[in-house]
Amino acid sequence: MIKDLLISTEGHNSLFEQEIKQMDIPTCKVFLKDGALLPVGFEEEGTELYNKDTLKVNEAFKNSVSESGNKVLKARATNLTAKSGLNVAVLFSGGPAAGGHNVVVGLKRILGTNNKLYGVKAGPKGLLKGDLFEISDKDILSIANTGGFDYLGSDRTKIKTDEQFSMVKATCKKYELNAIVVIGGDDSNTNAAVLAEYLYDMGVQVIGCPKTIDGDLQVGDLLPISFGFDTATKIYAELVGNILQDTPSSRKYWHFIKLMGRSASHVALEVALQTKPAICLISEEVEEKRLSLDDIISSIAKVVVERSKKGINYGVVLVPEGIIEFIPEMKHLVAELNDKVAEFSSVLANKDKEEKREFIYTKLTAENTKLMASLPDYIEDMLLADRDSHGNLQVSLIPTERLIIEMVQRKVKEMDSSVPFNHQQHFFGYEGRCGAPTLFDAAYTYNLGLTAGSLILAGKTGYIASVASFDKEIKILGIPLTGLLNIERRHGHDEMVIEKALVKLDSPAFQFFESRRDDWASSDLFNSPGPRQLWGPSAKQMPMTVALNRVYSTLKFDY
Amino acid sequence: MIKDLLISTEGHNSLFEQEIKQMDIPTCKVFLKDGALLPVGFEEEGTELYNKDTLKVNEAFKNSVSESGNKVLKARATNLTAKSGLNVAVLFSGGPAAGGHNVVVGLKRILGTNNKLYGVKAGPKGLLKGDLFEISDKDILSIANTGGFDYLGSDRTKIKTDEQFSMVKATCKKYELNAIVVIGGDDSNTNAAVLAEYLYDMGVQVIGCPKTIDGDLQVGDLLPISFGFDTATKIYAELVGNILQDTPSSRKYWHFIKLMGRSASHVALEVALQTKPAICLISEEVEEKRLSLDDIISSIAKVVVERSKKGINYGVVLVPEGIIEFIPEMKHLVAELNDKVAEFSSVLANKDKEEKREFIYTKLTAENTKLMASLPDYIEDMLLADRDSHGNLQVSLIPTERLIIEMVQRKVKEMDSSVPFNHQQHFFGYEGRCGAPTLFDAAYTYNLGLTAGSLILAGKTGYIASVASFDKEIKILGIPLTGLLNIERRHGHDEMVIEKALVKLDSPAFQFFESRRDDWASSDLFNSPGPRQLWGPSAKQMPMTVALNRVYSTLKFDY
Repeated sequence: MIKDLLISTEGHNSLFEQEIKQMDIPTCKVFLKDGALLPVGFEEEGTELYNKDTLKVNEAFKNSVSESGNKVLKARATNLTAKSGLNVAVLFSGGPAAGGHNVVVGLKRILGTNNKLYGVKAGPKGLLKGDLFEISDKDILSIANTGGFDYLGSDRTKIKTDEQFSMVKATCKKYELNAIVVIGGDDSNTNAAVLAEYLYDMGVQVIGCPKTIDGDLQVGDLLPISFGFDTATKIYAELVGNILQDTPSSRKYWHFIKLMGRSASHVALEVALQTKPAICLISEEVEEKRLSLDDIISSIAKVVVERSKKGINYGVVLVPEGIIEFIPEMKHLVAELNDKVAEFSSVLANKDKEEKREFIYTKLTAENTKLMASLPDYIEDMLLADRDSHGNLQVSLIPTERLIIEMVQRKVKEMDSSVPFNHQQHFFGYEGRCGAPTLFDAAYTYNLGLTAGSLILAGKTGYIASVASFDKEIKILGIPLTGLLNIERRHGHDEMVIEKALVKLDSPAFQFFESRRDDWASSDLFNSPGPRQLWGPSAKQMPMTVALNRVYSTLKFDY
Repeated sequence: MIKDLLISTEGHNSLFEQEIKQMDIPTCKVFLKDGALLPVGFEEEGTELYNKDTLKVNEAFKNSVSESGNKVLKARATNLTAKSGLNVAVLFSGGPAAGGHNVVVGLKRILGTNNKLYGVKAGPKGLLKGDLFEISDKDILSIANTGGFDYLGSDRTKIKTDEQFSMVKATCKKYELNAIVVIGGDDSNTNAAVLAEYLYDMGVQVIGCPKTIDGDLQVGDLLPISFGFDTATKIYAELVGNILQDTPSSRKYWHFIKLMGRSASHVALEVALQTKPAICLISEEVEEKRLSLDDIISSIAKVVVERSKKGINYGVVLVPEGIIEFIPEMKHLVAELNDKVAEFSSVLANKDKEEKREFIYTKLTAENTKLMASLPDYIEDMLLADRDSHGNLQVSLIPTERLIIEMVQRKVKEMDSSVPFNHQQHFFGYEGRCGAPTLFDAAYTYNLGLTAGSLILAGKTGYIASVASFDKEIKILGIPLTGLLNIERRHGHDEMVIEKALVKLDSPAFQFFESRRDDWASSDLFNSPGPRQLWGPSAKQMPMTVALNRVYSTLKFDY
């Protein structure tokens, strides 16, 4: 009998999954009329987006801008003239994030029985290949509130070439598509903007939805956070909290924990606010304050030594995955090494590791020689050996935690050889992408789906759906994608792309962190946020960085 | 205002921690009389423990056995003649496990105001040093239902020498102790048995409590599981479930996940039952079936290739931390290498890596030569290089996941070079020791504390407290520690120790796993158990291995 019970849980059907699939999802009041779910109409919200590159972008996106005028839309009331008979396709793009399934659920429900919803298999690639299937009501019941992107799959194909655009057009024709919903990060929504412009003449609408666990797709009060960020950071924060709780229990280790997120440190900052560790590095601070590797290592070692004097020979250090790439002097060193290795490639080819190092030292500037000499031997070897086909070293290949641990160990020994320094290292990444969504992400994404569907039924194209004002009456928004584009140098030429939102040092969240971190470093003030709860009194919590940056007075969200 | 809220969460005071500290803990009815919490008395349960070494153990533990007769006790009713005026000390021993704090809470509450409870700081070491402090009611409010051992701290000191015993006696005198509660694993409870015998003449009672996340302290129906196992496995199972959910979302990787637990594979088995991955290795099976490294690698590679034929180029493999030490041929190889390296130490001293390898090949048996040659080079180098002060190689130093991944990669290529094999590796260990306890562990440990306190107030010594029959009316038991001792060869001489409970291949839990694993390997049948819930409809779940092995008909526990 217990065996039958266990077998019945196979295939996405654990007791937990059974319960969350049936759980009510909070719905923004504007979508409800006499208890029925109905699409909303839109009106101008009052904001017109503008940046340094707007004129050039307007030129390149004539169709989209002529429609939107780069003006933000907000939901008004039930849309009594909503379209019907539409064929809509939805796809996931890029790495998975919790809540993606609920966007599909929201879309399906708001499109109702008068329209068809197709799922695109395996991301943008599926759109090119025309690999679509119709999403049924039954499917929706089995994916509500579950984590992952497995219902559709995803990939990282970028749609750029004329051939690819033709393939998309063919797919649109094959399925008589009226609209496409792209669920993805900054690059995927850039793609959505381009597709919207390109498919405008065909009458195919394109709407984006903001997804990324990194949290770097944000537009101030208009788009406070991308979905998936809350779940990922709450998963990491539980684990960091558990390890923090372990430190004074076993009183033995410094734990260095690398957290996923190559470009921005939102994840590290949020996890730090959730848990209060001894140290949390922020890549944007390193870059802006032009900190050297030695500055970083010394500041950590100093905390290790000072805590040891109080008998605290343990602690936790949070390290953003991409930190090395933000250290200015490391970039200079790598740049000079790239030049020198290319210049002297024939000389270097016949040398062994030792000889290579000796030779290259004679070619570097004094500053870079000093930095190079401070690195562990195996890192020096890496810097001289592993180059890609363009002759460049990928800074991201450097094993960050190991480098930092070894250099801190050396520095602590120099400062006070009596200080014990035992260490463990961790990397939390994949664990956080596909967990079941938090209540915050579950509600946010479902309402995003309702919003994206409503934008389509209102005939809109080239917008990213957004849900904002989490603390009080929720705002349902459509933000013109063209208003988010700016011009950046990528792969050697200018491209119009959505700017990644980095941690700002003058933001309330960073400034709060800055005001508390010395206390967290000097004594144990950590807490354990615990596993994310779907029921009970602590279940309704939004990200702390969002509450701080948007100047809310509560962590609770309200639909 | 939001800043004040965040600052108020510092120091173990997250919103989650605030709530769990106030949460009601289920209490076994036998401890309740007219709503008041009262200690229970004990009577014989009907079981007398006996094993092959009982006569010898009885000889060595005359005091304890004369009292207990190795007979198991069960709670009867309120103890109307409970002792009072006692001074009781409690300590944590070994690695932390979730629920330890609740044992202290239960102890404090059941000892009431008529007795004093002392906390021993930093484990057995604190008992030697006499580092004790009185536990207050206020303290108890701040640790209820929280994870970790940080309230007292812990260490791994073994109390063995005469000098150490004298120090313990001095501490007992200093604090006028009447009883000591030792919260620990198999070795710590062996220690508790020895202390009980040794302190018998002084009239100091000793009671043990079964803790270990490894789950290898079990005594059939009498002690179905140690505390901490449920929380640790549910934490790991959530993470494994998240990664499983990631595999068909991104469709890219085989994830190899090493799970903490050196001796037994209970953790891996439980996590496999919770999540249903493609593959889970069980150390005890490897040993009992005398599987070779090649058997293991081939069986994994076969699954990789077969899934690939169905278009499934991803999956999850669970690997118990200690697996390498269970492979018979690896033990033989290491033993022979230890001999040869010692025999030819002077010859080897002057050789470089390459020469060492070539030389040693001429000295090994054909079987070991073959095995050695199948290993990656860096493992070969390790096997020849890193020896401890006794000239032995620690098999446990071999980087298990890396070895398995590299050998599987090679094997897959041999079998079918067109099969893609991208991989990621993870190790889950520290994350699981100090999380907030599951409802199961929270209730179990609180009632363990009530039981240990009741045994003390009933004048008992040399017992391990236990809570059993989780599915129906809970049983409160005292199990004589001497009845669990057997004689094992350790460090070259016979010692009386508690036997580690390993996974039995004829147990219902393993057999169920065995009956399902081919299906789990051939197609995706996984589920995500989700984060452990403290509230809501899926919160009350015991370990699946316990429910299967004890032949319960439900996963719900009932107090």
